[in-house]
Amino acid sequence: MDRPTSPTSPAGASDPTGPTDAFHVYDTTLRDGAQQEGLNLSVEDKLVIARHLDELGVGYIEGGWPGSNPKDTEFFARAREELPLKHATLAAFGATRRAGVAAADDPLVAALRDSGADVVTLVAKSHDRHVDLALRTTLEENLAMIRDTVRHLRAEGQRVFLDAEHFFDGYRDNRAYALEALRVAAEAGVELVALCDTNGGMLPAQLGDVVDDVRDSIGVRIGIHCHNDTGCAVANTLAAVRAGATHVQGTVNGYGERTGNADLVAVVANLELKLGQSVLPADNLREATRIAHAVAEVTNVPPASRQPYVGASAFTHKAGLHASAIKVDPDLYQHSDPVEVGNDMRLLVSEMAGRASIELKGRELGFDLSASPDKLRRVTERVKTLERSGYTFEAADASFDLLLLEEMEGARPSYFEVESWRVITESSTSGEAESEATVKLFAGGERIVVTGEGNGPVNALDHALRSAIGQVYPEVAKFELIDYKVRILDQGHGTDAVTRVLIETSDGQRSWVTVGVGSNIVEASWEALRDSVVYGLRRG
Amino acid sequence: MDRPTSPTSPAGASDPTGPTDAFHVYDTTLRDGAQQEGLNLSVEDKLVIARHLDELGVGYIEGGWPGSNPKDTEFFARAREELPLKHATLAAFGATRRAGVAAADDPLVAALRDSGADVVTLVAKSHDRHVDLALRTTLEENLAMIRDTVRHLRAEGQRVFLDAEHFFDGYRDNRAYALEALRVAAEAGVELVALCDTNGGMLPAQLGDVVDDVRDSIGVRIGIHCHNDTGCAVANTLAAVRAGATHVQGTVNGYGERTGNADLVAVVANLELKLGQSVLPADNLREATRIAHAVAEVTNVPPASRQPYVGASAFTHKAGLHASAIKVDPDLYQHSDPVEVGNDMRLLVSEMAGRASIELKGRELGFDLSASPDKLRRVTERVKTLERSGYTFEAADASFDLLLLEEMEGARPSYFEVESWRVITESSTSGEAESEATVKLFAGGERIVVTGEGNGPVNALDHALRSAIGQVYPEVAKFELIDYKVRILDQGHGTDAVTRVLIETSDGQRSWVTVGVGSNIVEASWEALRDSVVYGLRRG
Repeated sequence: MDRPTSPTSPAGASDPTGPTDAFHVYDTTLRDGAQQEGLNLSVEDKLVIARHLDELGVGYIEGGWPGSNPKDTEFFARAREELPLKHATLAAFGATRRAGVAAADDPLVAALRDSGADVVTLVAKSHDRHVDLALRTTLEENLAMIRDTVRHLRAEGQRVFLDAEHFFDGYRDNRAYALEALRVAAEAGVELVALCDTNGGMLPAQLGDVVDDVRDSIGVRIGIHCHNDTGCAVANTLAAVRAGATHVQGTVNGYGERTGNADLVAVVANLELKLGQSVLPADNLREATRIAHAVAEVTNVPPASRQPYVGASAFTHKAGLHASAIKVDPDLYQHSDPVEVGNDMRLLVSEMAGRASIELKGRELGFDLSASPDKLRRVTERVKTLERSGYTFEAADASFDLLLLEEMEGARPSYFEVESWRVITESSTSGEAESEATVKLFAGGERIVVTGEGNGPVNALDHALRSAIGQVYPEVAKFELIDYKVRILDQGHGTDAVTRVLIETSDGQRSWVTVGVGSNIVEASWEALRDSVVYGLRRG
Repeated sequence: MDRPTSPTSPAGASDPTGPTDAFHVYDTTLRDGAQQEGLNLSVEDKLVIARHLDELGVGYIEGGWPGSNPKDTEFFARAREELPLKHATLAAFGATRRAGVAAADDPLVAALRDSGADVVTLVAKSHDRHVDLALRTTLEENLAMIRDTVRHLRAEGQRVFLDAEHFFDGYRDNRAYALEALRVAAEAGVELVALCDTNGGMLPAQLGDVVDDVRDSIGVRIGIHCHNDTGCAVANTLAAVRAGATHVQGTVNGYGERTGNADLVAVVANLELKLGQSVLPADNLREATRIAHAVAEVTNVPPASRQPYVGASAFTHKAGLHASAIKVDPDLYQHSDPVEVGNDMRLLVSEMAGRASIELKGRELGFDLSASPDKLRRVTERVKTLERSGYTFEAADASFDLLLLEEMEGARPSYFEVESWRVITESSTSGEAESEATVKLFAGGERIVVTGEGNGPVNALDHALRSAIGQVYPEVAKFELIDYKVRILDQGHGTDAVTRVLIETSDGQRSWVTVGVGSNIVEASWEALRDSVVYGLRRG
């Protein structure tokens, strides 16, 4: 995962932020994206997402608001220790000093400095009504809060960006004041002002006109931060770039409050592929689909199949009209080459669909399917059938390997044969419920019956299974279940719905993923558990 | 900005389609929307959706391609009988005559006329490479196909629109030919040419420039048809309107192939609420949320919560920062009044939320916390503590209600007391595993012991619990578990991790959500199940 190459030193050679600083790709998934309904990120989740963002090659990662809650404070502390970022610079988000308090005496301002982030992004009011009604202070004091906080942080050696909150609404109601807030920040030493369409009500042409005016009125670098309430977050961001903005904010998969923030991958892909502007390190965009999906695994928000560029359907063709011509020339029916963003073209009508990628995946696993077109066809059909019933093999390489083995060699490896299993979970007077599993199986010529306990049914089954098999294959003692994911498919049918379980197992050196599906969550988990042990034994 | 005013329809002032003909809202959900992966509409589905579209007040409903498949032919036949449309005019989609065949002799052209639709929308090639490689005919013959088919249909008394397929790609590769295709259609008598960004690769500024040029080059009414491959379908549509287009095509919920078509509701809401252009009958936009969700029920595609204007999250606020100010003035944090599109503002309770949002949430649930600052502080602390251990109350209104009740009134409602419960899940030789749960509880002065079966442990517990309580409170028979969500928190710790379960229960009229958390998934589910019954009984 984390490639141990040189972390960027804040005190680095000539330009610490590197060549990409001419144009900022500024990700706020961990801060503004986390405002999305139903999205709840642990510190561990945030660290994993930050590594993905760095692999994508964004210039800045806004990690949260240190000091506002313990989780964000912990994130920055751990990020300093655990994140060797290759491309990205960490930014800490926070507010200007409180009214009537010196910046040096405001503990929230101190927390920004103490976070150790290289950049502080200060959010400031630029809409007069918000100063009056939400901040409840005078227009003058708000300007002083901006001025003092920026100066204080600059004096402490921080780089400072400004998020001008509700800027476009403020501009509409009181242009002079909105511009004055930017001017004060610029004079106090911010590197840029990001104009925020906080309520998301703007349209591109109107937004572009405002950015034009800001550019002509104030000599400061301009950034843009859009929300998707009119369905125009991506287009609004591009309109700002067209008007001179050189810093774009957004989130992976467009996560964010209400309708979400600008989808950063769509913004970047449009800039690179449609407008010829390189904003990521060369070739990094090819990781976009993989990374967008990996982040969705962490957030556990199902990826939108229709998502531009990276969605599962984004390069999928259904119409017979199209499919016949695609054979002649794929570019006739594609606006971009899906390879550019790491996605694939799929044809839904053709039974040829998927074979190429299955052949490729087989090769990765050491099977040459090109020589056996019949087997290739059979595997493809089986994968399609299984996927229709809820399986996914995109992540579950180990299950796919066992499936290939079965088709290529006629059978799966057989290390043991299960007679039956049972799990009991019951309430306990002392607190948490307890689970107990019994597994009966044959291995090494013996019938083995083992009972295991655990803090849940799957945990108990895992203990019983590995303890039973361990009597014949002691190497399973090394195996450890390190990740367990559950997704309810076909939501809306309650507990009758089909459940998909993904299990990641490690032998201390490598890890592998298996999948199980069923209407009974325990059975689906059992399938994935059983395959994880079989695969582990096969790999030796 | 230039707001194009109405060119009068060629069909004249007494036209039966009424005043909306000055600007066309043209829906293609039933034709282009149906190309979406996983979307499969029966004739009955299409008729239901057509009624919803008519209620929304769209001007035109493109029903399909009669003659191309029996389903679409049947749709038009039944629509004539069964659809008393109030606002909308039906349009039949179809291709120009085949190469080398007279229009009068082409059965597909005849099927268009025989459909009985008032308008025929002909799709024609305007991209030279498509004529060459996909249509495999000469550029001249393609123009003749357009000319002949339009003239033939006009001579038979049909109104004809033209969809210029791949227009923008064609314009880029061969501007003269693309414009010539439009000119030929205009001269032959089409009412308008809809410029199609079929592959969806355009961006608003560039698209607007092309529409400007078309408007200046050819004297014909202009329409626009966009796909969302760059995430800009809505913005592209608005850019075309700004450049003079007076006919917009789109689909409900943005359904369509690949990334989908322009979301018609977002286009219309932006035109009406942001640009002051009335394009639907007065007040009809207020039906938008209801209708978008009703159509999603028919298509069985889960509605996207982040969808602009109509999504469940579109006017939902989470940040505590915001919640305090929303009390002062909702317009500070809303780009539009949700009532305008028939949606609602919602406030979420979350760890980022402070006391203000908990107070507001309490008010929604009928508790006045403003008078009890101590209790408010205690509830806020408790919510924060629970959220740190994995609970979430932003969706789980019912659990939050029970928590408030406990703090405000000193105790939760007590309808029953649980002695113990147990679930057994075991493998079966006949296939899927089976689960059996036993629940022991006291209710109505009795000790009740009930065993229930299910296709999973939670399903079995649910059956046992409701059957036990039903002996004293028969109303629980109405309760049905309609959604079950599992989230493993702190992934990376395998089955030892904490599990969060959300359960949605319905009594047939309303639904409510409860939450449970624990290291044992069955215990977490039990907690949510138990609270769902308590809350249901309390609501009566």
